Amino acid sequence: MPEKRNKGSLFIVSAPSGAGKTTLCKKVLSALPYLKFSVSYTTRQPRKGEVNDREYTFIHRDEFTGMVKKGDFIEWAEIHGELYGTSKRRLEELLAAGNDVLLDIDVQGASQVRKKSREGTYIFILPPSLEVLKTRLEKRMTDSQANIKKRLKAALSEIKEYTTYDYVIMNDVLNDAVRVLEAIVTAHRASRKKINPVWIERTFFPKEDT
Amino acid sequence: MPEKRNKGSLFIVSAPSGAGKTTLCKKVLSALPYLKFSVSYTTRQPRKGEVNDREYTFIHRDEFTGMVKKGDFIEWAEIHGELYGTSKRRLEELLAAGNDVLLDIDVQGASQVRKKSREGTYIFILPPSLEVLKTRLEKRMTDSQANIKKRLKAALSEIKEYTTYDYVIMNDVLNDAVRVLEAIVTAHRASRKKINPVWIERTFFPKEDT
Repeated sequence: MPEKRNKGSLFIVSAPSGAGKTTLCKKVLSALPYLKFSVSYTTRQPRKGEVNDREYTFIHRDEFTGMVKKGDFIEWAEIHGELYGTSKRRLEELLAAGNDVLLDIDVQGASQVRKKSREGTYIFILPPSLEVLKTRLEKRMTDSQANIKKRLKAALSEIKEYTTYDYVIMNDVLNDAVRVLEAIVTAHRASRKKINPVWIERTFFPKEDT
Repeated sequence: MPEKRNKGSLFIVSAPSGAGKTTLCKKVLSALPYLKFSVSYTTRQPRKGEVNDREYTFIHRDEFTGMVKKGDFIEWAEIHGELYGTSKRRLEELLAAGNDVLLDIDVQGASQVRKKSREGTYIFILPPSLEVLKTRLEKRMTDSQANIKKRLKAALSEIKEYTTYDYVIMNDVLNDAVRVLEAIVTAHRASRKKINPVWIERTFFPKEDT
């Protein structure tokens, strides 16, 4: 019997900092077993509790720039002086195995993926209001007021990019936002284009087919 | 403050008989309060337990054909000698009030709506296999073998139309199918096109706007 579904789908989730993206993605990944996380490469040091090849694959800068030169990354970026990149090979292997894949990347990374990949569902996470965004940035940052202002400006400039995404999730109540992100992935799996027409043919019209 | 979302969306659900569409739609309608059912008009007699303007609006044939002439229906059809139709006005009123609306109509009705309406999400319900389809038709029908064969042929010819739908739901385990239909409606509400750009502007860029 042929497979019921075509290969897996790619979901790209972006958000300005302060939107609560990382928590949201983790919750959805643990709720949906067929949704996998593509582990990124980074040059930054592992933090306490982080495991190599789970949160990130931690590599040296030379190795990273070597991979950039070989074109190994579908997207990469320098953030606060450290390099982060998504491996083309890892992504393709996960998709080819029939998994849906979640990429948790920033607006710039998403834009690189969009240019290189024909498919993909782009999801933007928004804070519920300007006040909440400010409060979240202030809570998170041990920075000076000047730095917080800079980060708010950066967040607002990222928010303007929401128009290039397919879906927009307002992250007001976390569990509601989780439910919506799960729904987007679940709905996409029922998309008609994901159904293998050969499966339909063999299932409902077996005589005509053989 | 401007509305966060544009007006409601239309969901058209079709299936061959034996796919379990009516039960599925009822379950999803009771789970999602913002999803409304557009009550159809019909010339057939009410069955026991049916309430006028709830399951259907029951009208006389003359009245129905008058409405057809006035162009009151977005779709209508004659099924087993009785007339069924979806009122344009009812549909528009529900959508304009910001509701999402579910239409439970057959493949022919869906095709009429598709021709007249630019928007709408089309969802096709499939039985999980040919065997299940046959069993369900046999269980339901008190008909002769010849009639069951005729109905199976009709169901298979409707299944061929799945290619004109946006989503395909395999109704194997009812609760799983309910979850997928709910996800399609929920995901669609998070579609970027449903977000009012004026709301975004006023929420995150208030100074530039006033």
